[in-house]
Amino acid sequence: MAEIHQLYGAQSHFIDNGLARAWAGTFTADGQFRSPSYPAPVNGASELVAFAERFFAAGRDAGETVRHVVTNTYVTRTGPECLTVQAYLQIVATPAGGPSRLVRQTTISDELVADGGRWRIRCRTVHRDDQRPPHGR
Amino acid sequence: MAEIHQLYGAQSHFIDNGLARAWAGTFTADGQFRSPSYPAPVNGASELVAFAERFFAAGRDAGETVRHVVTNTYVTRTGPECLTVQAYLQIVATPAGGPSRLVRQTTISDELVADGGRWRIRCRTVHRDDQRPPHGR
Amino acid sequence: MAEIHQLYGAQSHFIDNGLARAWAGTFTADGQFRSPSYPAPVNGASELVAFAERFFAAGRDAGETVRHVVTNTYVTRTGPECLTVQAYLQIVATPAGGPSRLVRQTTISDELVADGGRWRIRCRTVHRDDQRPPHGR
Repeated sequence: MAEIHQLYGAQSHFIDNGLARAWAGTFTADGQFRSPSYPAPVNGASELVAFAERFFAAGRDAGETVRHVVTNTYVTRTGPECLTVQAYLQIVATPAGGPSRLVRQTTISDELVADGGRWRIRCRTVHRDDQRPPHGR
Repeated sequence: MAEIHQLYGAQSHFIDNGLARAWAGTFTADGQFRSPSYPAPVNGASELVAFAERFFAAGRDAGETVRHVVTNTYVTRTGPECLTVQAYLQIVATPAGGPSRLVRQTTISDELVADGGRWRIRCRTVHRDDQRPPHGR
Repeated sequence: MAEIHQLYGAQSHFIDNGLARAWAGTFTADGQFRSPSYPAPVNGASELVAFAERFFAAGRDAGETVRHVVTNTYVTRTGPECLTVQAYLQIVATPAGGPSRLVRQTTISDELVADGGRWRIRCRTVHRDDQRPPHGR
């Protein structure tokens, strides 16, 4: 459990600080990232690195610091070497010299596997609260 | 400690996703929930289930997704089978197609007991920061 | 790890509730606190107590409750008796009878040492996201 909390504690610092390879390394080599905020799923280590690099460059070019604020981490064991993790994720952006704002409230739903002595994310799916159907979950 | 973090990680997902019985099950059978945002204390399992069902239906009817964002969990052992937990709780609401907003910043103050091999909440008291007296805590 | 999470869980409750000595006690006796939101570094236990007292009094005098919302705690061991901890810190203020607002998104970077059987902060540096250079981290 401590290892999982470390993983989720660390991961946002990696992508938010431009450490694209470290962020991609929290996924398996064939890891997948799906988010409705981006046009297509991101598949595998090299695409994950490129995705994290683009994310950081976009904030820098916009003159903003963007943070992935993770809370409410909930771990469920689904097999001897498999976990699911649900969490809340706020995107908070701050322009240089300006006020911070809550850009988006989302939920992440991850599948993790034991991979070389560490837990890594095999598949992350992000759901945006502004795209929830009014009658479902 | 890991169990307590799991409890607080899981609990918001339960109520926010409409899993009213799972949410009520994080309280003891005679558990109490007191919040100044609601007219009266909620007492015992059946009232807790009904409260969680009303909470979820209200968001759905308003076309909003509402999240209980829990942070700053602080556990104090008060006896061999008793704990208190303090935490911060943000209520964040997002209308379909609209921006997320911080509705309310609150503090939760819980009494937990060992109950059938699990820690459960016997009494939760919510304090709203907008109702703090100017000179006290 | 559980002890570190407790430390970060507890610390905000201390300063936000006016428990200035308890907050200062999370630092070593020669602990240092540096934040660009304040004019000079705060050095050592008596200055840390006075700082926390001023923080709480300022909120009270302004009729506001101010919260230090800590997330994304990431612990790195740097020696047998040394750790670094990175975390995100939101400052959220709520006037009596008014809406809560996100005042500031910051990052904390701490050096901790084993001190009398407990982990304590020897040096905290706060970075404000609104003061980030556009091309660095």
